[in-house]
Amino acid sequence: MSPQPHIIIVGGGFAGLYAAQNLAELPAIVTLIDRRNFHLFQPLLYQVATGGLSPANIAAPLRAILKQQKNTSVVLGEVNNIDARSQSLFLADGSCYSYDYLVLATGASHNYFGNDSWERYAPGLKTIEDATEIRRRLLSAFEAAELEPDPIKQRDLIRFVIVGGGATGVELSGAIGEIAHQTLKDNFRNFDPAEAEIILLEGGTRILESFAPQLSEKAKLALERLGVTVLESSFVTDIQSDYVSFRRADKTERIITSCVLWAAGVQASPLGRILARETGVSLDRAGRVMVASDLSIPGHDNIFVLGDLACVVQAGKQVPGVAPAAMQAGAYIAKVLKHRIGNSRPPPSTFYYRDRGSMATIGRSLAVAQIGRLSLSGFIAWIAWLFIHIMFLVEFSNRILVVVQWGWNYLTRNRTARLITGENTTEKR
Amino acid sequence: MSPQPHIIIVGGGFAGLYAAQNLAELPAIVTLIDRRNFHLFQPLLYQVATGGLSPANIAAPLRAILKQQKNTSVVLGEVNNIDARSQSLFLADGSCYSYDYLVLATGASHNYFGNDSWERYAPGLKTIEDATEIRRRLLSAFEAAELEPDPIKQRDLIRFVIVGGGATGVELSGAIGEIAHQTLKDNFRNFDPAEAEIILLEGGTRILESFAPQLSEKAKLALERLGVTVLESSFVTDIQSDYVSFRRADKTERIITSCVLWAAGVQASPLGRILARETGVSLDRAGRVMVASDLSIPGHDNIFVLGDLACVVQAGKQVPGVAPAAMQAGAYIAKVLKHRIGNSRPPPSTFYYRDRGSMATIGRSLAVAQIGRLSLSGFIAWIAWLFIHIMFLVEFSNRILVVVQWGWNYLTRNRTARLITGENTTEKR
Repeated sequence: MSPQPHIIIVGGGFAGLYAAQNLAELPAIVTLIDRRNFHLFQPLLYQVATGGLSPANIAAPLRAILKQQKNTSVVLGEVNNIDARSQSLFLADGSCYSYDYLVLATGASHNYFGNDSWERYAPGLKTIEDATEIRRRLLSAFEAAELEPDPIKQRDLIRFVIVGGGATGVELSGAIGEIAHQTLKDNFRNFDPAEAEIILLEGGTRILESFAPQLSEKAKLALERLGVTVLESSFVTDIQSDYVSFRRADKTERIITSCVLWAAGVQASPLGRILARETGVSLDRAGRVMVASDLSIPGHDNIFVLGDLACVVQAGKQVPGVAPAAMQAGAYIAKVLKHRIGNSRPPPSTFYYRDRGSMATIGRSLAVAQIGRLSLSGFIAWIAWLFIHIMFLVEFSNRILVVVQWGWNYLTRNRTARLITGENTTEKR
Repeated sequence: MSPQPHIIIVGGGFAGLYAAQNLAELPAIVTLIDRRNFHLFQPLLYQVATGGLSPANIAAPLRAILKQQKNTSVVLGEVNNIDARSQSLFLADGSCYSYDYLVLATGASHNYFGNDSWERYAPGLKTIEDATEIRRRLLSAFEAAELEPDPIKQRDLIRFVIVGGGATGVELSGAIGEIAHQTLKDNFRNFDPAEAEIILLEGGTRILESFAPQLSEKAKLALERLGVTVLESSFVTDIQSDYVSFRRADKTERIITSCVLWAAGVQASPLGRILARETGVSLDRAGRVMVASDLSIPGHDNIFVLGDLACVVQAGKQVPGVAPAAMQAGAYIAKVLKHRIGNSRPPPSTFYYRDRGSMATIGRSLAVAQIGRLSLSGFIAWIAWLFIHIMFLVEFSNRILVVVQWGWNYLTRNRTARLITGENTTEKR
């Protein structure tokens, strides 16, 4: 009997984890490598950033998820290098793993389009630490306003700018609007938190560009009802500790603010560059790997790239960096490997992303959903949003806890996870 | 009409918060100052440190708790100085508050008995950040063992030492035993987490010294069943990054370990020293303020010190630094102030702590409880422990969430909040 082939999957996000789970029955050794010990349900990360959920509600330990899957082991580590010729992977701790098949799915982080100095003032939202840091900044701004005697400075402290009108930016803005108008009502004595100004800057002509225009319009109206000002065609030109500058209709404007949140662009994980250096594969402008139609890379049919790390073009359009696309890619790769190793039925030679729709929620009881050519909005879309998000949470315990927490938040308009934690807690801002 | 008197309470723990809540109806201005924006239910902090609960489950925003209490405002800040003559308080941000009555209840932190260098290697458990840091160290040790090829070093990595056999040390040791034997079962491929060694070092002749001897014995047996080795009469003499030394029966022993947790001693908050410098009040060896029988300080009948910051002697014994004592002191001070300001019935001139009992839980379904001369143990004590801890959680939402999370953990023997988060996540240990 020949030894079983070794499949290494790097990244335990939607793509990597779904690939691993679909390989449970295969006569192969599967190793899942991740820097973190948990899978993170990123679509709900904005709820952690706004105090609605706890980090552990949307995270699940990878070892717990995969403990019954005897052919699979989990390694906590960071990949530093790849040697495609000897089929080896090198981790930051100096260890080396050899593979027969390699699946790379390390995702993406924020992209400041060359202005890396902005990151300090405008954190993005990709990790648990990002979320608790944003939560700290949001809540600390209200605390500072309570202590500020000068009414002008007080208003400056509770002016929030969100850059980027995609789903994350829209959901974040709506949640901050709810915090200001509902959650923090009666919490302060020296100002009314409802006076907070929330400004959403979008570079394109409308927010939620991937949705139908009437849904963008509905989302905008819903945001405005929560006190959010939506400014389209606004390009950020500078971010400093106390202001944001942007160009709009050929004029440069400046907003005084000490709290800017970044939801504008993503940059693929540095593993893409490592792979490009090693194999000569091309990257797109965001650092994503240009994969072949079966998600392998040219000249290396045993290396696959999926999820936000891959640039997949389908019918002339890029497959979006969303969770369903990553899950489908993970399932597809598992089929490819099952065919190659286990002799099961060959999958199509081209990965096909089936867009089952996208949705965004804006505060209590309202969401917009685009399902093919069908546009949904309002309460029905919100219920659909709730149902789908709960369904796709990986662990059953998380589903229960999220339902209980949401039920409570809905009934009381409270957000009980609004803790200011972390290093800078007692530091002056 | 004369202006209303101003009561400042420093510290939103059990003592300070209960004092504030009992002053709701008083014609006075109440200001509660805390460094953190939440009240923390410290008795369950060890459950956050061991991945059983999320931080927000045991914390409640102070503003949310007090929002309906119109005479009370919350200030996020740290007291730097007190001027008793002008009745003023100075905060770290430079602001100044004048008071008519001052209630100090800033609690305690760890005491390394002059060996402050130990803190780095042996963190204590007082804050949310302490708890997530301990959680990180515990879980990272198992992760490192999975990657360690040398079986000797592997065993060294999963050897844990807990210093101090009071309730915190006992509960922490039991929870780590459960993690090793139950939670992490089947989670690793290269070693069995049940091989973890957990050593509890106690300086006295028995653990849980404030309980009846037979309860100490039962607790020890229960710990041993969870794989914990209890070593009494063991005095720690040194802690370094890779070992703990201790004296026991006139011999010095050394345990190789990279994970030491400190539950041995407390040191009152530095505010005690500030008060002593200003008013000449005496401090005990742990830095606690020697208060008069009504919790005021000699020569200043408008300054009160309570909770873990105060040294209260009753019938020749110190009132213990436990939550019920702090709550009772908070309620007592509220009565004193209501009498002085609101002309209500005078309370007794001496604060009397009524010991309603103490309890500690050791893993699933077992606890010990000392209620006066009644000793309880086993399942009944555990149910009492559960009920009392849930009852005293401040916010109703926390009660629901803790019940749900505990129910889930009990049924599945899982701990879903075992996330490795924080700064050093990807750093080599």
